[in-house]
Amino acid sequence: MRVGEHWYRTIWAGDGQTVMIIDQTELPARFVTRCLTTALEMAEAIKAMRVRGAPLIGVAAAHGVALGMIADPSDRGLAETVALLGATRPTAVNLKWALARMHGVLAGTAPADRAPVASREAARMADEDVAVSTRIAEYGEVLLRSRAIQIGGEGPLNVLTHCNAGWLATVDWGTALAPIYRAHDAGLPIHVWVDETRPRNQGLLTAWELAQHGVPYTVIVDNAGGHLMREGRVDVCIVGTDRTAPNGDVANKIGTYLKALAAHDNAIPFYVAAPSSSIDWSLSSGSAIPIEDRGPAELGLAESIRVVNPGFDVTPARYVTGLITERGVAAASREGLAGLYPERLGVGG
Amino acid sequence: MRVGEHWYRTIWAGDGQTVMIIDQTELPARFVTRCLTTALEMAEAIKAMRVRGAPLIGVAAAHGVALGMIADPSDRGLAETVALLGATRPTAVNLKWALARMHGVLAGTAPADRAPVASREAARMADEDVAVSTRIAEYGEVLLRSRAIQIGGEGPLNVLTHCNAGWLATVDWGTALAPIYRAHDAGLPIHVWVDETRPRNQGLLTAWELAQHGVPYTVIVDNAGGHLMREGRVDVCIVGTDRTAPNGDVANKIGTYLKALAAHDNAIPFYVAAPSSSIDWSLSSGSAIPIEDRGPAELGLAESIRVVNPGFDVTPARYVTGLITERGVAAASREGLAGLYPERLGVGG
Repeated sequence: MRVGEHWYRTIWAGDGQTVMIIDQTELPARFVTRCLTTALEMAEAIKAMRVRGAPLIGVAAAHGVALGMIADPSDRGLAETVALLGATRPTAVNLKWALARMHGVLAGTAPADRAPVASREAARMADEDVAVSTRIAEYGEVLLRSRAIQIGGEGPLNVLTHCNAGWLATVDWGTALAPIYRAHDAGLPIHVWVDETRPRNQGLLTAWELAQHGVPYTVIVDNAGGHLMREGRVDVCIVGTDRTAPNGDVANKIGTYLKALAAHDNAIPFYVAAPSSSIDWSLSSGSAIPIEDRGPAELGLAESIRVVNPGFDVTPARYVTGLITERGVAAASREGLAGLYPERLGVGG
Repeated sequence: MRVGEHWYRTIWAGDGQTVMIIDQTELPARFVTRCLTTALEMAEAIKAMRVRGAPLIGVAAAHGVALGMIADPSDRGLAETVALLGATRPTAVNLKWALARMHGVLAGTAPADRAPVASREAARMADEDVAVSTRIAEYGEVLLRSRAIQIGGEGPLNVLTHCNAGWLATVDWGTALAPIYRAHDAGLPIHVWVDETRPRNQGLLTAWELAQHGVPYTVIVDNAGGHLMREGRVDVCIVGTDRTAPNGDVANKIGTYLKALAAHDNAIPFYVAAPSSSIDWSLSSGSAIPIEDRGPAELGLAESIRVVNPGFDVTPARYVTGLITERGVAAASREGLAGLYPERLGVGG
């Protein structure tokens, strides 16, 4: 996506020995890129949320494995690198998915060939992520246009989003924001309500993204969305997901559940942009998803104040209007997903 | 309530010419009292939230009228003072209630006598407010004890509250927190989940209050309460109200509605501590309550970022388990309130 005069992805290979990232902890105040040279540096970047967002975490971990293979392509080096990167963040399943894929490819590769093979595989995953975002943009745009027709009226379509599921959360375009960019570029008048998203304020990343792209937006505190919905000022909600259960439950940034409740109470569609890589087929429901404890420091309060800081919550499928995947839009249910993933959930599958 | 070694109210008459307040914009970092000498200074203190909380705003406005009568006890001075103070904050009905009462008393008083009469009436209203808090504490304690029996178990009763409806929001003891203090003092093990309450972080006032009194608490971001409810870590919610409609709808600090939805979704009782002075008998429902726009500066973001900042939201009566008033606990409905206020809502009344 465009930053000033230039076009960027959130992550890209450097000179074959390094990986470049946009350091998102510096945004929106400063746009800073960093050059990472080891798997340990990548693990730190993921844990400290220099790179964040479920899809990007997966691709970043893949690039981290590639860096690890430069330093030590042995079986032991591969195992240690995968373990190091896998321990960074617990909730997003994309991380495990990406590491399992890298391990599968590299386990069958001679150590001497692992570094270039890993680098190629990471690059392929990045390209695939962009393709996934593009398809989600296409399917999501249809939903936005449909909703705009349904509500009619003169003003823009008012979309509410929580946290950042934009291009900064992926390699490019985003998940929840991808349909917004596409619809905006195609001329649909659109305005985005951006939840601040305490404690890490990823809403400011969303605001920064939207501003760079020229999409009108307004930042609100996390407390305000329900009131705006009651007042008829929100037409549709779109959020991302860090892990999707096959029954349609979704784990996303803490506070998502509250907005889904309010949308349901006010008959507002609540969509979740859910790439296939976010679906954890091993689960029966969202209740088994591990919720990351992010620790007290993120709130920035005096140390004497006791704090609990869960990073995610689970929104039950009954409050999700639809899941937007790269294969199409599904009802948030086992039956709905079975239509898109017959090889996973089909009869006799 | 106790602050270190001393006992304080939130507001008290000085030497007959002044009124003392605790400046709540300095809390929790510093405990600062201020001496106010004019109605204009009191209006500024209310508008800037040096004094805040619906019940305290009412008493503060009464004291402001008393200061105004020292400067100009004429009919014109009275009218101007009431208008000045009435324009400070729109949502809390206690402000209008208190000013109407002061005006009623003073309109029938000779100008020469107005200053001492106003001062006595303000002091009487402060004492009445303490009596109201005490009765709410008594009725609310019964509800907390009842809930503790219902859930059983070994641990403390986990109460979630939003914003600050403690002694800092009243003259003493509070509304929502008053039952918590009373139950704690009587030996009921209790732990309070304190919503941070962006953008003004009144949750830190609640945390400070609870810490001064020795009540265990944990601060959480506003996004987290729904997740904790889903995990079974919240047993009961109590919040305050800035304006209560006779049908049981309540306007309270922005974000209250979201917590009421989550409590309802998880079958957790959601109580509202509602002194009679918060009930606006002129309304048919909460939809007519004016919602204060607090402006963008409170969020503390760069000026280039567009912000909307409503200060309150309306929670529909169907999500309120009960209203705790100084006359007892009522169902949040016209029928429920009619039992406690037959003179207002009784058959043929």
